[in-house]
Parts: sequence; C-alpha cells; structure tokens
Amino acid sequence: MKVSRKVQKILANYEGETPGVKGKLCQMLMHGRLGGTGKMIILPVDQGFEHGPARSFAPNPAGYDPHYHYQLAIDAGLNAYAAPLGMLEAGADTFAGAIPTILKLNSANSLMSGTAGKNQAVTGSVDDALRLGCSAIGFTIYPGSDMALDMFEEIVELRREAASVGIPTVIWSYPRGEAISKDGETAIDIAAYAAQIAALLGAHIIKIKLSTDHLELPEAKKVFEDQGIDVASQAARVAECMRSSFDGRRIVVFSGGAKKGEEGIYDDARAIRDGGGNGSIIGRNSFQRERSEALALFDKLVNIYKGNE
Amino acid sequence: MKVSRKVQKILANYEGETPGVKGKLCQMLMHGRLGGTGKMIILPVDQGFEHGPARSFAPNPAGYDPHYHYQLAIDAGLNAYAAPLGMLEAGADTFAGAIPTILKLNSANSLMSGTAGKNQAVTGSVDDALRLGCSAIGFTIYPGSDMALDMFEEIVELRREAASVGIPTVIWSYPRGEAISKDGETAIDIAAYAAQIAALLGAHIIKIKLSTDHLELPEAKKVFEDQGIDVASQAARVAECMRSSFDGRRIVVFSGGAKKGEEGIYDDARAIRDGGGNGSIIGRNSFQRERSEALALFDKLVNIYKGNE
Amino acid sequence: MKVSRKVQKILANYEGETPGVKGKLCQMLMHGRLGGTGKMIILPVDQGFEHGPARSFAPNPAGYDPHYHYQLAIDAGLNAYAAPLGMLEAGADTFAGAIPTILKLNSANSLMSGTAGKNQAVTGSVDDALRLGCSAIGFTIYPGSDMALDMFEEIVELRREAASVGIPTVIWSYPRGEAISKDGETAIDIAAYAAQIAALLGAHIIKIKLSTDHLELPEAKKVFEDQGIDVASQAARVAECMRSSFDGRRIVVFSGGAKKGEEGIYDDARAIRDGGGNGSIIGRNSFQRERSEALALFDKLVNIYKGNE
Amino acid sequence: MKVSRKVQKILANYEGETPGVKGKLCQMLMHGRLGGTGKMIILPVDQGFEHGPARSFAPNPAGYDPHYHYQLAIDAGLNAYAAPLGMLEAGADTFAGAIPTILKLNSANSLMSGTAGKNQAVTGSVDDALRLGCSAIGFTIYPGSDMALDMFEEIVELRREAASVGIPTVIWSYPRGEAISKDGETAIDIAAYAAQIAALLGAHIIKIKLSTDHLELPEAKKVFEDQGIDVASQAARVAECMRSSFDGRRIVVFSGGAKKGEEGIYDDARAIRDGGGNGSIIGRNSFQRERSEALALFDKLVNIYKGNE
Amino acid sequence: MKVSRKVQKILANYEGETPGVKGKLCQMLMHGRLGGTGKMIILPVDQGFEHGPARSFAPNPAGYDPHYHYQLAIDAGLNAYAAPLGMLEAGADTFAGAIPTILKLNSANSLMSGTAGKNQAVTGSVDDALRLGCSAIGFTIYPGSDMALDMFEEIVELRREAASVGIPTVIWSYPRGEAISKDGETAIDIAAYAAQIAALLGAHIIKIKLSTDHLELPEAKKVFEDQGIDVASQAARVAECMRSSFDGRRIVVFSGGAKKGEEGIYDDARAIRDGGGNGSIIGRNSFQRERSEALALFDKLVNIYKGNE
Repeated sequence: MKVSRKVQKILANYEGETPGVKGKLCQMLMHGRLGGTGKMIILPVDQGFEHGPARSFAPNPAGYDPHYHYQLAIDAGLNAYAAPLGMLEAGADTFAGAIPTILKLNSANSLMSGTAGKNQAVTGSVDDALRLGCSAIGFTIYPGSDMALDMFEEIVELRREAASVGIPTVIWSYPRGEAISKDGETAIDIAAYAAQIAALLGAHIIKIKLSTDHLELPEAKKVFEDQGIDVASQAARVAECMRSSFDGRRIVVFSGGAKKGEEGIYDDARAIRDGGGNGSIIGRNSFQRERSEALALFDKLVNIYKGNE
Repeated sequence: MKVSRKVQKILANYEGETPGVKGKLCQMLMHGRLGGTGKMIILPVDQGFEHGPARSFAPNPAGYDPHYHYQLAIDAGLNAYAAPLGMLEAGADTFAGAIPTILKLNSANSLMSGTAGKNQAVTGSVDDALRLGCSAIGFTIYPGSDMALDMFEEIVELRREAASVGIPTVIWSYPRGEAISKDGETAIDIAAYAAQIAALLGAHIIKIKLSTDHLELPEAKKVFEDQGIDVASQAARVAECMRSSFDGRRIVVFSGGAKKGEEGIYDDARAIRDGGGNGSIIGRNSFQRERSEALALFDKLVNIYKGNE
Repeated sequence: MKVSRKVQKILANYEGETPGVKGKLCQMLMHGRLGGTGKMIILPVDQGFEHGPARSFAPNPAGYDPHYHYQLAIDAGLNAYAAPLGMLEAGADTFAGAIPTILKLNSANSLMSGTAGKNQAVTGSVDDALRLGCSAIGFTIYPGSDMALDMFEEIVELRREAASVGIPTVIWSYPRGEAISKDGETAIDIAAYAAQIAALLGAHIIKIKLSTDHLELPEAKKVFEDQGIDVASQAARVAECMRSSFDGRRIVVFSGGAKKGEEGIYDDARAIRDGGGNGSIIGRNSFQRERSEALALFDKLVNIYKGNE
Repeated sequence: MKVSRKVQKILANYEGETPGVKGKLCQMLMHGRLGGTGKMIILPVDQGFEHGPARSFAPNPAGYDPHYHYQLAIDAGLNAYAAPLGMLEAGADTFAGAIPTILKLNSANSLMSGTAGKNQAVTGSVDDALRLGCSAIGFTIYPGSDMALDMFEEIVELRREAASVGIPTVIWSYPRGEAISKDGETAIDIAAYAAQIAALLGAHIIKIKLSTDHLELPEAKKVFEDQGIDVASQAARVAECMRSSFDGRRIVVFSGGAKKGEEGIYDDARAIRDGGGNGSIIGRNSFQRERSEALALFDKLVNIYKGNE
Repeated sequence: MKVSRKVQKILANYEGETPGVKGKLCQMLMHGRLGGTGKMIILPVDQGFEHGPARSFAPNPAGYDPHYHYQLAIDAGLNAYAAPLGMLEAGADTFAGAIPTILKLNSANSLMSGTAGKNQAVTGSVDDALRLGCSAIGFTIYPGSDMALDMFEEIVELRREAASVGIPTVIWSYPRGEAISKDGETAIDIAAYAAQIAALLGAHIIKIKLSTDHLELPEAKKVFEDQGIDVASQAARVAECMRSSFDGRRIVVFSGGAKKGEEGIYDDARAIRDGGGNGSIIGRNSFQRERSEALALFDKLVNIYKGNE
C-alpha cells in the first residue's frame, strides 16, 4: 500500500510514537472510500449500552443483530467501526480483517442515578483489543464531572498499555457533570477545552461534539471576547477546536448527536471540512435509518469530505 | 459424543471464542435429558446465602444437605447445577464428573441494610472453578444499582480470566436499585435492557427474569409504543429479550422466582419455548417440593421444552 | 498416630480438600484429652485487643504474660490455642510444637466509634501462620454489618491462600451491625444463618455463639413457626445450627461469652454435646479464673464432652 | 563538560543519591545561559490543562502549537522546559536532546467542583519520562487540602521509582484547600512549611510561590514574632524559605504567578537572588507575551541572576 | 562486641524472630553511653513535618540544618536518631555508620482539617530503610481514630516486609481521635491499651506517652478500681504500661511531649526507670535548647538511667 502524502504528513505529527501505533493510525486513514484523504468517517454503535436496545434498534430492527453494523460500515466504505466488547465479538469470525475496528473500552448506561451516573464502567481491555485484532481502543472521559480525575487516570494507564503493544487511542471527550451547565456541555469554550485535555492526555484521535456559540466559563468568555476569537459559524468553532488540539497536530472527529434531518448532517460535515476537522463519527443518524437510506447518506458525506459537494 | 446440529449452530454464534470455552458450553448443552436440543434446565441453589437456611430448606429439610441438590439435578437429568463455593465443595468428591456445575462467584444476603444491600460479595474465584472442575462461572449484576458499574467491572475481569482458561460465563442480570421502581424490576423494557447489558459485557449464557408488560423508562416506553413492539404475551416479551440478546446469538435462560403453583411454572416454560428462549433456571420451585414432586415437575418441563406438551 | 473412626468420618466431609488441610484438621481433632472423640475445646485469647489489657487480665494478673495462656492450654489438655500475632510470637520458641495454634488474623478493639467500629483490622497473614507453624487461621466476620461484604471477600481470599499451603480456616461468624437489633445478635434464626454463611464461605471450622429462642427476621420467623422448628431448648437450637452447617458436615464450636457461673458453663457444654455440636471455645471464663480453678473447669468440660457427666 | 565548583557544591548536598540522579540534576544546572552558576530558569507550560487553551494561548496564538514553547525555551537559553505528557510528546522527535525537559506527572483543570477540585489527575509516569528522555519528573502537592496525604503518598512512590532509574524529582508545593484561607495560600509561614514538606518528601528541586508577610497559623505567628524572624522584605522571606529547605541544601525555584508588569518580574528575581533562592519558573509571564518581548524578558532575568542588574 | 547479659535477656524475649532483626535490636541496645544497660535514649526529629519549620527550629536555628541533629545524637552518646526520609537522606553520606538511625515511615502535618487530620501520610518505605542503612523503621498509629484500622493494617504489612529483611519495627502508639476525649489521650487505661495494641501488632519497640491518673473508658475504670491497680504515681503507671506490653517482654520507651522545665524531664526519666520502662525518646526538649544545654540535659538523663541520680 502506498501511503498518500496527506496521510504521511498527519502521521509525522505523532512524534515519539512507535511504528506499531503509527501503522494502525495509517491503516484507518488509508481504509475505505476516504482512504488517503486525511479525512475519516467512523460508525460507532454503543447506544445499546447507553440507551438500551429498543431505543437504539427498534426504529430499524435489523440493527438488533451485531452483524448488521459490521456490514453497514463495510458496504459504506467507512474508515472504521467502533463498538463495545460484546458487539465486536459477535462478528469476530465473520468479519475478521474486513474493516478496522475500535474497541470501546468503557460504557455508560441509562440505569444509573446520582453521582454514579457521571461515570462509565470499563468493560474491555487492551488484551481484548489485541485478541480481536482491533485498530484502536476508545474511551470516554467526562471533563466537568467529579469523576473526571479518575477517568483521566484510567485512560492514561490504558493508553500507555495500548501504545506499548502498538495500538492507538481514541478519546471521546464529552464535557458533563457537576461543574458544567446543560448549555455548557456544548459551549465552544468547553468544547475546545475538552479537545485540549484529550490531546494532553495523549489521545491519538480526539472525538468531540460540535459546539454552539455559547461561552460557559466567565474567565474564558472574557478572553474569547478580548481576543476576538471568531465563534459565529460552526466552521469557525471547528477551527478553534483544531487549534486547541495542538494547532491541528492531532486528528479530531466530530459527532453528530441524536437523529436529525439529512440536510443538517450535511451542513455539519461541510463545517467540519471547512474548519479543518478530520471527519465525522455518526451512529444513530445512520443505523436508525433504513439500510439503503443510510448508505445514501454515507455516500453523500464521503463526497462532501472529498470536496465534491 | 456426536454434537447435534442445533448445538453446533448455537456454538457458531460464539465467534472468536476458544475451543475451551466452546467445549464447556457444548458439554452443558449436550448433557441431560435436553442434551442436543439447544434447550437447558439448570438447578441453582444459592438461596441459603440469600435468604438463610431455614427459609430455604425447612420446607423440605432434606435440602439442608448439599448432597441432596447434586442428586436431584442428576436424577432429574438437568443440564447443570449452580451453587456457591461451600455448596459445591461439600459434594466435590462424591459427585465429581456426574453433572456439569456452575460456580456462583458472588452472593447476596438478607442481613444488609441501605446501600450495602445493593451489592454482593465475591466469594469464589476462577481458580476455584478450575479446581472443582466446573463447567462455568456465574455472577450476578444489578443494573440500576449505584454499585452497578463496579459489578460490571468485576464480571468483565472475571470473564476475561475464566475465558483464558476455557471456562464460559453465566451472567445473572437482575435489575434493582436506586434508579428503578419495584415494578420496574420486572418491566419488559428493563428486562430487555438487562439482557442487552449482559450480552455486551460478554456473557456466554444470560439469565434474566420473566417480565411483565410494564414499561418503566419514559423514553423507552415511547419507542415501544411508537414502534408497536408486542409485549402483550409472555412469549412476545421473551422474544423481545431474545432480540435484545444479539438477535438470539446468545443463550438466554429465564428464572422462575418464588415458589408458585405448578401450572404457572408450566405456562412460563411454554412461553419461554414459544418466544425462542433457551430454557429455565429453577431453584425454590423444585427443591422446596418433596423430591418425588420435584422430579415429576422437572419431567414435565423437559417434555414441554421437547415440544411434547 | 492412629486416627480414630470418628475423626476419619469428620475428615471425609471435607470433600475436595488437600491432604495438607485435612492433615492439620486431623492434628487438632486428635490432640489433647478430647483427641479422637470428634469433640474440641479451644482456648482463645484476643480479649487484650478487643477489650484492653486491664479488663482482660487484671482479674488474674498472671494472664498479662503471653506464656501463661500457652501453658494453660497445654496443661488443660485442650485441642488448640488461638490468639493474634503478637501473643503467639511471644511464646513461639518456648512452646514450639507443644500445642496446635490458631493465628487469629483480624481483631477488633474498643477504641472505635461509629461505622469504623463495625469492622476489624487484619493484623496477621497466611505467611505468618506458616512461619509460626500454626494449625489454622482464624477470622471474624460480622454478618449484618455494612462492612460484611468486605469481610466476606477478605476471608475468602485468605482461605484460598491458606488452603493452598495446607492450612485450614476457622471463621468466627458473629452477627452484628446496622441490619440487626441487639437481641437479634443472639437470635436462633440469625445464629443459624451465620453458620450457613460461614459454611458457604468455605470455613473448615465454624465458631458461633449460643443463641436464644428469639426470632429476628420476620420472614424467617414465619418459616420457623410454619415448619415447627424446635427452638425451645439450647440443645434444639444447637441442632438447628448444625443442620445449617451443611447438615453437620462442618465442625462447629460454640463460644461462651462473658464470664459467668460454672454451672451455666457446664449446662452450655451439655447442650452443645446433646445438640450434636463439636465443642466449646472458652476464653474469659477460663483465663480470668485462678489457674487451678481454670484447670478444674476444663477437666469438667472434657468429661462432659466425653459423655461422662 | 567541566562541572563548575558552584554546581559541584550543590550536588554534594544530595547525599546518598545515585550518580544517575546527580547526573541529571547536573545536566539541568549546567545547561543554558545560567549553566554553572547554580541558578536556574525553567519554562513551565501546563496552563492549557489548568486554565484551558484560550485563556492560555489566545493572547499569543503562536502558543497553541507545542513546538513554540520548546523553541522559546531553547532560544532563551533556559535550563529546562516543563510540560505534561501530550505537550512534550508533540515535539519529542523535533527537539530530542535540544533542551532538558521535565515531565509534569499530574495536572489540575478548571472544570472541577467541590472537593474533586482539590486534587490533580496523574497523567504521566516514570516510564513515560524515561521513554521521552526527560531530565526530571514534576508533581504538584496541595498542603492544606484534604487530599494532601494521598498526594504525598503518590509523589513518594513516584520519586522512589524515578530515583531508582536515575531521574530526579521536582515538587510543586502549592498550599491550598480546606485548612487554609485564601491569604494563607501565600503567607510566609505557609510557604516555608510547604518548602519543608517538599524537602522531607525527598524533592530534589522544590518549587514554591513567592510569599507575602501574612502569617496564617496562630502558633506559627507566635513563633515568628517571638523569635523575630524577618519577613518584611521579599528577599527576607525567600531566605526563610531557603532555611526551611534544609538550610539551603535543596534547590528551590520560585514561581511568578499570573501575568504582570515587567518591573515586578525583575524585582521578584532580584529578591530571589538576594534571598539565596536558586531561580525562577516563569510560564504565562513569558509565553503570553510576543516572542521577541519574551526573549528580552528572559535575557534580562539571566542578567539579574548573573548579578549584572 | 560482647553483648551484655541484660541485652541478651531482652533479646531472648523476641521469640521466633530472625537473627537479622535481633541483630539490629542489639545494635541499638549496645550503642552509645547506655549501651548494654537495657536502657535507651532516642532523638526523634519529625517536628518539621508535624508543626512546620519555624515552630520546630526557630528557637534554636542551628536545627534548620539536618546535619545538626545527627551530630547532636552522636555527641550526646544516644542509642539512635529517628527522622523522616528527607532528614535522614540529607546527612546520609556524612554520617554513614556513625549512629543507628530509625526511618520514620509516616508523618502528620498541621495543615489538615477534619477527618483527614486523623491520619498520617506514608512517606518512606522498607526499601528506603535498607538503602539508608537504618537500624529500624518507625510508624505512628492513632488508636481511637476512625482511621485506626487502616493504620494497623499498614504497619502490619510494613513490619512483615521489614522483618523479612532483618529490620525491626518501632511503633509510636498515640491515642487520639473520634472515640477519645482530650483527657483520654493521656489516660492511664488508654496508654496501657495503646501499648497492648502495639505489642499485639508485632512492635519490637513500643513508644507511648507518659500518662495521667485519669481513667477514660467506664468499663476499664471499673476494673482498675475493682482490682485496685495502682495509678497514683507516674512510676506505677509506667509499671502498668510495662505489664500491658506482654508483662515486660517488649522494649517500651516514653516520650517527653512539649518543651518543659528540666526538672520535670528528670522526674519523668526517674519514673520511667523506677517503673521498669526502657527509656526516653526526647525531641523538642533537646533540640530546641542551645546545643550545650541539650548535651548537659542528655548527660544528666544518661546518669539517671544508669541509676546514678
């Protein structure tokens, strides 16, 4: 495989990393229809854990079967498929080698109350990722939660272990918890801060949410206004998040959130592209649609990231 | 031993598993009067821990003796016998090799107050299971408890260790705790969610309770109603739980609960069978009856699962 | 040494155990004046930890010296002497090999407040027991305490380690804590439950308190009454505790409690004997008496257990 | 390299240390424009973690790029550059060997509430420091916080591990928390106490804040007044902190705090020099200025520490 | 070196101990001007941690320098010098072999609030003690604190590790915390109980405070009065503490507390001697005096313990 110049340039940013980690990053960046462009689309399916099976799969019951999602990601020509242990194992023989997989190592659920609900259970390990031939591990942190320090320490340990066996780390950096308002969870200052924390913790790929122009922290708000940081457009906000990810030295993908209209999804992708982001991670907006619709949606997104639309 | 086609098909769902784990699953599926049918009946005796000896065994005092339960499971031609460490050890020489055993690794008791009562003590280990020649380990999780994340992390570790030495894992997924109402503990949306969580955690066999048509979580209720998921009959609810167990790719057995009338037990078994479930796990409803009655009851259940009644 | 039939029969109940563990159980059962009868008397001296030195030893100041207790147990012809680390070490050279010893691995003290007082500190290890040539380890659990699950998990780990090097485990199962009333601590339903838990945790020897005819738990009370379980006499209550110890498959010794009159002690022993119990564990009632009185008391107890009085 | 007499004298204070640790201390003391003088200037960049990216880097956006800070420290001829894992890794290839680096092993953030905010997450390890070729590890403790004992125990473990592989330890000793008022955080009695604790914990280099003449603890205040300890000038306060660092046997550097006027910075440096301190650790006051201004500022500081201004 | 009969007799009490541990006990007992008498004077300097540097050292500023205390202990002909990690390291080369040292493994500080203040941080290890050539480790427990069980478990682990490499353990048993009144901290019943706990935990040398005739615990008070235990004089109280230390089978040294008049110190030493105690551990009362005064004070104490005054 000839690695494209764009991908070579991205890989060069991962200074000090082993060829093993760089190799698996390369594998994901070169895979699928966006292979070699430096852009990525990832299918994540951990909603069965987080929201329960009916809320996740009843709208398109084919999704109750773990095989469905493997096949969708393959047929859509995506870069990678991310899921918790049980989901990946359920297709481990059938789809071995067919698409890069990301083992999501921790998971939340909707059956927790109080503080317990501000954390996630670690349900997979680096050994599982090795055994299942995964291209990366994934882990969610909640900056703003009282559990955040523990989560930071967990992922730092797991990242170290994973890197030592040649596996890169994707950090889902999702602000929430005691220190942040509901609006603050998607505020641009918080989103950029979340990206920065993930980068400092050693994430190879950072996953954050698209943000609003709300500014949550008074001291940050003052600086954003004093320095005239542009947060008016989604593309501008993506750009601020890229700056906050070591000035673009880290791959950042953005998530789509709850199911919504197609045009909204396409606009998001254009903003990500125009702001210098590396791509999308899209779950419910794809697998809750009929398979044909989902494939059409992914096709359109690929074209947007290729700059054709 | 010639493995039946039905069992071969079930085993094929355990993708990525070692021959050791598949071999022990096969052993349980091929053992006893239901051997080869893909159906299972398991005798669990951990009530001495959970409810105390008198409440468990005084109705049929022969049950004070651990040997009684081994013999009952053998004579009834069941697939396996499940119990905590002390119970299995007390017959470890006498019944070695006579019936597959499941070492229950954690146990609750009725002498706990407050939050402490929402957890279980880990009282056995994978090494104990190996030493005692067990065919599986068993572990209870309480989705909905504030202790749930810890319990998830415990079983994930134990499952990994067990699988690495060729021992499969049975997860008792029993919703309870701060986040769930009393009715919610047996609600169909919760039962299906509990099955999904066990599957995602890597359970090879899932044990859940039969459910009611109650819908506990507002967001789930909305989806059940919008998508018209059938929850009217017990068989329909069993079917939804099977879908939620990777579309039937995992073995699911259902528990009978407190002692009740025989007809109720038979109706339950027919619903499990008709909804595509894999069988029953029946404790108090068998060992609290006279031995002859218990054997007659198991005989009838076997016939139901064979499709004869 | 020729092992008596009674002892051989007891040892056969420890199915699956190694010759090492059985050998040390045999050593204690064959030692002293009750050697070979299947009955045991044990001297425990951990009151210096639990109540302080003056309350424990001032009534008979010879007891301040750890050597005193070794010599008392030897001269009385008891089966074993049980004490915490410091006490055993203080005579480790002088009395090496003279009497089986039980290293008490955890200890409470009277200087704790609140929840902290519902737990014990682990002050010895299996390695200490090996180094000091002990015949068993001892450990207290508090069923009913909010710390109980932790204590269960501690002893299960220690038992596993001890058994792996050929050392049996004695569990002091003493109900107390948030979930139990003061009367409940000696209720017969609770005592039998405590014995059952110890057996399930893998105790080789169970130590419980003699009980009253109080019934603490409503659900248990109902069963005791419905099934007509006899709790009127102490012997009947001992018998229920033996049934709850795997129908007598485990050795159970009963403790005497605070210092009391001699006739009460003898009546207790007769009830233990007549109810099928294995013997007494007597501390303050012996070492707080003058040495000659204590020796006379032990002599009488030996005769009772031999069936002579 | 010929080691200066001043540096040799400092190194001799590190009694019992291995040549590995002394070697790396020597490397930092001999590096840059202050090399050999016994004085040090260190650039720390962990504000992206602590305050977020915009507050830290927007005033001088070049600082979003981790390479900027490496280059700044090199071009200014500083002794060392200190940063968290992600920051150091992002330039690990480009700047390998160009300047001594200090891996900051724990980090706070501004997204924590309540008690959780009185602690830091451990985000790096000694293995990381070895892998990245660092000259020291850095760790923050919060004397006065209810988390302080845990932090002390963490750094003691890390220091032991680091020293065993030849890496010295820098302790940031920053008083804050439940036991101290806001004024107390910079009180001279507290600052000296913080230095003493760091020294007792085994710090090779101590980093504290410059203090005020406030006296926080009543019993300390009494002694300061009774003994007539001079706290009127900043230089006198620096001298008391040096005495509290084993009478000057440990290297102590002082931090500059929030961005302020240049004259204030120069006055601080003169006080540190005149009080016998070893130097400055200056972050925001340098990297939030334009690069040319920052270089001029460092040049002036070098001259002050050389005694030229 | 010829070991005196007195010391041989003391060493014989440490039954079951290795020659390594006995050897280091012997080294301390044979060192200094009291060498061979069975009596000991130890200089402890951990007040910089506990009270801060100014409160500890400003009254005699020479004490800011760790070398001062080594030299003082040597010149006074004491048995040993005890201090935390940093203090010992700071003179580790200069004073190697010159005086037996005790590495104090845990330390309190005056900057803690609430429950956190009832504990100490573990700041040294057995490996440190080995590396620094120490003759013993030291550890403080707080019987009566809600943290006491944790502290007991910590020292038991450390003692086991230390003994396994031939290093004896000194336990500072200082009652304080939720379960004890201020007066109770020095009550005779509590002091004797504290000594007993230290002995049971395996202390080779016990350090307690001199006590008052207050009786704290009602049940203990009753026994003291009923049994007529003499607590009227300090010597009588020392004797009760010795009885509670395995009837004198353990070495017990008594601490002097806050700085006070010289006559009081001498009276204390005479009471320790007359009550059968093994000696004094004196910190602030020595190093806060001018060096010449301190040496005179130690000279007098040596003479008292030799029975000359």
